[in-house]
Amino acid sequence: MRAILVGLGVVGQSLLQMLSERYEELRDRYGIGLRLVAVADSGGAITKASGLNPARVLQAKRAGGLKSLGDGNFTDDPLGLIGELEADILIDATPTNIVDGEPSYSYIRSAILHGLDVVTVSKGGLALYFPALKELAAHRGVVLRFSGTVGGGMPAIEFGKECGRSDRLEKVVGVLNGTTNYILSRMEDTGQTFRDALGEAQRLGYAERDPTLDISGLDTACKITILANEVLGMGATLSDVRVSGIEEIDVDEVRAARERGLAVRLLGVADGRRLEVSPQTVGERDPLAVKGALNAVTFKASYSGSHTITGKGAGGPETATSILRDLVAIKMVRVAEVSRI
Amino acid sequence: MRAILVGLGVVGQSLLQMLSERYEELRDRYGIGLRLVAVADSGGAITKASGLNPARVLQAKRAGGLKSLGDGNFTDDPLGLIGELEADILIDATPTNIVDGEPSYSYIRSAILHGLDVVTVSKGGLALYFPALKELAAHRGVVLRFSGTVGGGMPAIEFGKECGRSDRLEKVVGVLNGTTNYILSRMEDTGQTFRDALGEAQRLGYAERDPTLDISGLDTACKITILANEVLGMGATLSDVRVSGIEEIDVDEVRAARERGLAVRLLGVADGRRLEVSPQTVGERDPLAVKGALNAVTFKASYSGSHTITGKGAGGPETATSILRDLVAIKMVRVAEVSRI
Repeated sequence: MRAILVGLGVVGQSLLQMLSERYEELRDRYGIGLRLVAVADSGGAITKASGLNPARVLQAKRAGGLKSLGDGNFTDDPLGLIGELEADILIDATPTNIVDGEPSYSYIRSAILHGLDVVTVSKGGLALYFPALKELAAHRGVVLRFSGTVGGGMPAIEFGKECGRSDRLEKVVGVLNGTTNYILSRMEDTGQTFRDALGEAQRLGYAERDPTLDISGLDTACKITILANEVLGMGATLSDVRVSGIEEIDVDEVRAARERGLAVRLLGVADGRRLEVSPQTVGERDPLAVKGALNAVTFKASYSGSHTITGKGAGGPETATSILRDLVAIKMVRVAEVSRI
Repeated sequence: MRAILVGLGVVGQSLLQMLSERYEELRDRYGIGLRLVAVADSGGAITKASGLNPARVLQAKRAGGLKSLGDGNFTDDPLGLIGELEADILIDATPTNIVDGEPSYSYIRSAILHGLDVVTVSKGGLALYFPALKELAAHRGVVLRFSGTVGGGMPAIEFGKECGRSDRLEKVVGVLNGTTNYILSRMEDTGQTFRDALGEAQRLGYAERDPTLDISGLDTACKITILANEVLGMGATLSDVRVSGIEEIDVDEVRAARERGLAVRLLGVADGRRLEVSPQTVGERDPLAVKGALNAVTFKASYSGSHTITGKGAGGPETATSILRDLVAIKMVRVAEVSRI
């Protein structure tokens, strides 16, 4: 597989590290022999037809930037590469942008148009243009996978699809953002105010310096949009979600709920008609009442009941593992096709 | 698909009901057009090459037994049918027998030898002879599926396999028996003794009149054996599991654990080398500390972390849905094969 990797944040760097440390295991056990023909970040791209060394790319990125690599060719137009290089797959690990989905949207769209399979962990482009991108991918006969956009390393989307095989999925409800869940758990357990709990989360690295995307509920909204499309077949975009965040939650509310055996959680809900993100109460024994930075998603099916998956919803190595899982899935699709010829 | 259904307990009857009520949905949405060429219970079998009506079979079973159906031919040698009928698939819903795995083991073995794909929800034959049956199935090129043996309608096995795709699974730990979990939860919450909680569970239908298989830990042992084989590739059988049950648990222990923020749970553990079932303490916030009759399984992976699945682990319609899920999976394998010719 000749791959173009765009985006070298935490996830992109973790992927490089895995590709370097687990090269033989990935090739021998999972059949992923990945040749990186280009790697790009916001500063430009390095290309090399015979393949870049992931460990050296990582080193250069951490030292003086991609340009300092001293291998391959540098270009400041990464997007243009998609049509020029002979690549099979685009791996998109660019940051989530919920305003216009860029640069993820343009990368994914261009890759599909040029017949590349796509793995993305970026939520904005998908959440804003899901139905259009899926249709385009189907039309061009390419595979578009995005396991890492929901739940980090937790295979939430695949699990939801498995729950729906031969059953009717009625509803998806999820605690899909670790930052807000950490804040709400702390308010619950220690009686801290929202501001204090947010400050603590920032100090511990659970919240970013600008936590808007998380606490406004928009990160959760992206994820429930993706689940609603892929698992419930809703054909929705981010603008269809009614969103309210946790900024206005008072610690007294949290305490009062607790006294009634309830926990306040920021829930994303999709039921085939309605899409909503809002703080709601769940029973303290409900599998959704996870603590700390954990995520949880419940899939309610008509015949087999409600199934919940719980795990760490973020993290570089975890999300990079999701990318690998998607690569294995694409490999399986392509191998099955070859054997059909 | 021409199917032979053996076993008409709660699950077998639920399956008949679903096949009758959801016939068109199953055919049109999932491609399962099932023709029941034989249905058997412990009293004998009814066969009909053009297919039996599931609703009428169910009615006869509930009224005066299969013989009262007044359709097809009756035989008192169901096992012999497998070689005689032109069937594609065996659906085994016979009761779990951990002594010699019968009649499940003979049914599955004979079906494989005659080239039938197999779906089973019976745990005994599998747990006693897993490596041999899997090898035989691979050798004969048939599909052997058993989603319903672990977690009822919860797709625990598929979820575990997905967690392991491109990652290394190190450990599986599960609360795999609803009856014992109900008893332990009640001891924890109400301070009841083991005997009282068991009595309550029996009155409410959570425990059978003879609860030995559950409280001895042997039901859990069957399930962890199946998970260990299918998810961790351990090649083990039931006799490899060190088993201790919950009969000796004192309510004072449960209370003392609770005071330390812990919960006593009957855990099945497999880590690639060791297989064990025993009561152990877990943190009260651990996703495994589920309450009531729920089940939970944690899959620990090297890179993507620990993922837990929680849900109702038993029930007729739930487990019957697992059978349908397996039928869909088999159908997909067979369709892929045809398209390869």
